[in-house]
Amino acid sequence: MKVIEKYNDSLHNPYWKYQLGKEAYEVKDTPQRVESIKKSLHSDERFDFITAKQFPDRLITQLHPYHDYIRNTALTLNNDEEEFYPDLFPGEGAHLKKRDDSPLWGGIWCTDAVTPIKRKTYEVARASAESALTGAELISQGQEKTVYALCRPSGHHAGPRVFGGYCYFNNVATAAQYLLAKGKVAIVDIDYHHGNGTQEFFDDIKSIFTASIHGDPEDEYPYFWGYAEETGKGQAEGTNHNEPLAKGTQLKEYSKALKRILKKIKAFNPAFLIIAAGFDTHETDPIGSFKIRTEDYETIGKQFKSLDLPTLVCQEGGYNTDVLGECVKHFLIGLM
Amino acid sequence: MKVIEKYNDSLHNPYWKYQLGKEAYEVKDTPQRVESIKKSLHSDERFDFITAKQFPDRLITQLHPYHDYIRNTALTLNNDEEEFYPDLFPGEGAHLKKRDDSPLWGGIWCTDAVTPIKRKTYEVARASAESALTGAELISQGQEKTVYALCRPSGHHAGPRVFGGYCYFNNVATAAQYLLAKGKVAIVDIDYHHGNGTQEFFDDIKSIFTASIHGDPEDEYPYFWGYAEETGKGQAEGTNHNEPLAKGTQLKEYSKALKRILKKIKAFNPAFLIIAAGFDTHETDPIGSFKIRTEDYETIGKQFKSLDLPTLVCQEGGYNTDVLGECVKHFLIGLM
Repeated sequence: MKVIEKYNDSLHNPYWKYQLGKEAYEVKDTPQRVESIKKSLHSDERFDFITAKQFPDRLITQLHPYHDYIRNTALTLNNDEEEFYPDLFPGEGAHLKKRDDSPLWGGIWCTDAVTPIKRKTYEVARASAESALTGAELISQGQEKTVYALCRPSGHHAGPRVFGGYCYFNNVATAAQYLLAKGKVAIVDIDYHHGNGTQEFFDDIKSIFTASIHGDPEDEYPYFWGYAEETGKGQAEGTNHNEPLAKGTQLKEYSKALKRILKKIKAFNPAFLIIAAGFDTHETDPIGSFKIRTEDYETIGKQFKSLDLPTLVCQEGGYNTDVLGECVKHFLIGLM
Repeated sequence: MKVIEKYNDSLHNPYWKYQLGKEAYEVKDTPQRVESIKKSLHSDERFDFITAKQFPDRLITQLHPYHDYIRNTALTLNNDEEEFYPDLFPGEGAHLKKRDDSPLWGGIWCTDAVTPIKRKTYEVARASAESALTGAELISQGQEKTVYALCRPSGHHAGPRVFGGYCYFNNVATAAQYLLAKGKVAIVDIDYHHGNGTQEFFDDIKSIFTASIHGDPEDEYPYFWGYAEETGKGQAEGTNHNEPLAKGTQLKEYSKALKRILKKIKAFNPAFLIIAAGFDTHETDPIGSFKIRTEDYETIGKQFKSLDLPTLVCQEGGYNTDVLGECVKHFLIGLM
């Protein structure tokens, strides 16, 4: 199986500490996450590493109105340590006379005050999206049946209005838009956190089916999206499916929920499948509360394989670097 | 002249440091601001200090949907130093299933990540609004022609959807709503920063005229509001007037702009006048860029006096505590 990578910069390393009730959490998107995955996949000769290609700007900019803001803000930083967070979030009714992409206007483009822009952020986010695009190209040309794009940063919280949640460009959405020229696309998000950005991108596009299986947003980020009643809009009603699951969910219930999603995808009959693959559903993940075991990911991979579709897997979250690589490996082996 | 005060807690002391281009700024809303004003007014026997009354909850809650959020968040804090800032700002299209007023949902209610809630914040904000209400009651009963409410925290950035910009409850809006039962109200905001919250409260209420004279939002907070073309909405078209002025504005140009506002107020013919009085227009203010001198405020006060209306002055900003008290005193003397 082809594994696509590009650029893993140690200088892009967001860190957020937060409190929910009496519980304190921290989320670290470190370069060690990529190292953990590479170590596991390098040890198995079935995985063949290739470097992502370059793609023209328009494949990124057409979906991301904040592209220039991210690039320009990164350019204003004076050194590798400096980071920019927006302070002000104007919300509805704001007169936006001056969308000049200066950092001052960050709150127009970013939905939170915890997703930093550092000097290298644009480059890594661009490389991450290009990894997904390279994978999309490979499966669209029929050269490969299943490919894995080792994306970092993640993309699934970045949407058509705003980015955030440690996501800058939506990798799976960028790949889906690319594949759409050749046929209908289904996207399934198995990260512990609902793929709100991806859902919002295609909420009213009936040729892309989106589904997400995740910790119930009543208690888990992104809180404001991911409920079962979000089923698509207008003509695209019925092309979004959310499976919010309770804390402590184990493989048995998880697989049932995934089965419901796969049944809908069969009915939708897409030409391509994209999996937004987070492994923060693992029982040891520091921020997730599911109880999926390392070997369970192979079973989950096999469930997806039953669809028998050209499949692009894009890496999303997963924060226990001791197990992340093995989780990815088991999942991809299940898909083989 | 009656001066209304209530509660000045040293434990509520927001501090925000920010960068605009190459310039670094800091805003401190310290209890010393109140001390500076009290010192100047105490030295003149024409000022008669009284304590604000208590008013029922509904006079605050009817305007401020985030009232419970602020009160409840303050109650969750464990000590006097702790402060809560929201992280996540869901914006448009968010499913808000669970508006349970927990701190987690702060980004629904607050428009920025720099306005803290501390343990004493609810109490001081409530006392500030009650100072304004006490003043409104005094002028509505005809007991006093002109009164000054020594409000801290300021209120004019707090609006009907969200609070922010160091403002929690909108003091002048609360007073205006109270006075509206007796007649039409005009509000003029002379703080260096546009009174976006006040404007938004009454943007479609044609019996309240709002005006603001401030640093051009092209360069100054609140950036997204305060432009000349914002003139009221629907039936209330024509009942809002903004005077964004350039950096370096001196009394001459300032007075001309104020004259344009006063002309409109005469035509509107209100029963009451409320002045949202900030003194960060002073030539030495650390965050404002106008060039108004201490003695100029007497001239500005006289301009307002020419309207010959029952007048409530509510304190807003002003951050040079060396001069703040004298600026207030000159302004109030002009109004006498």
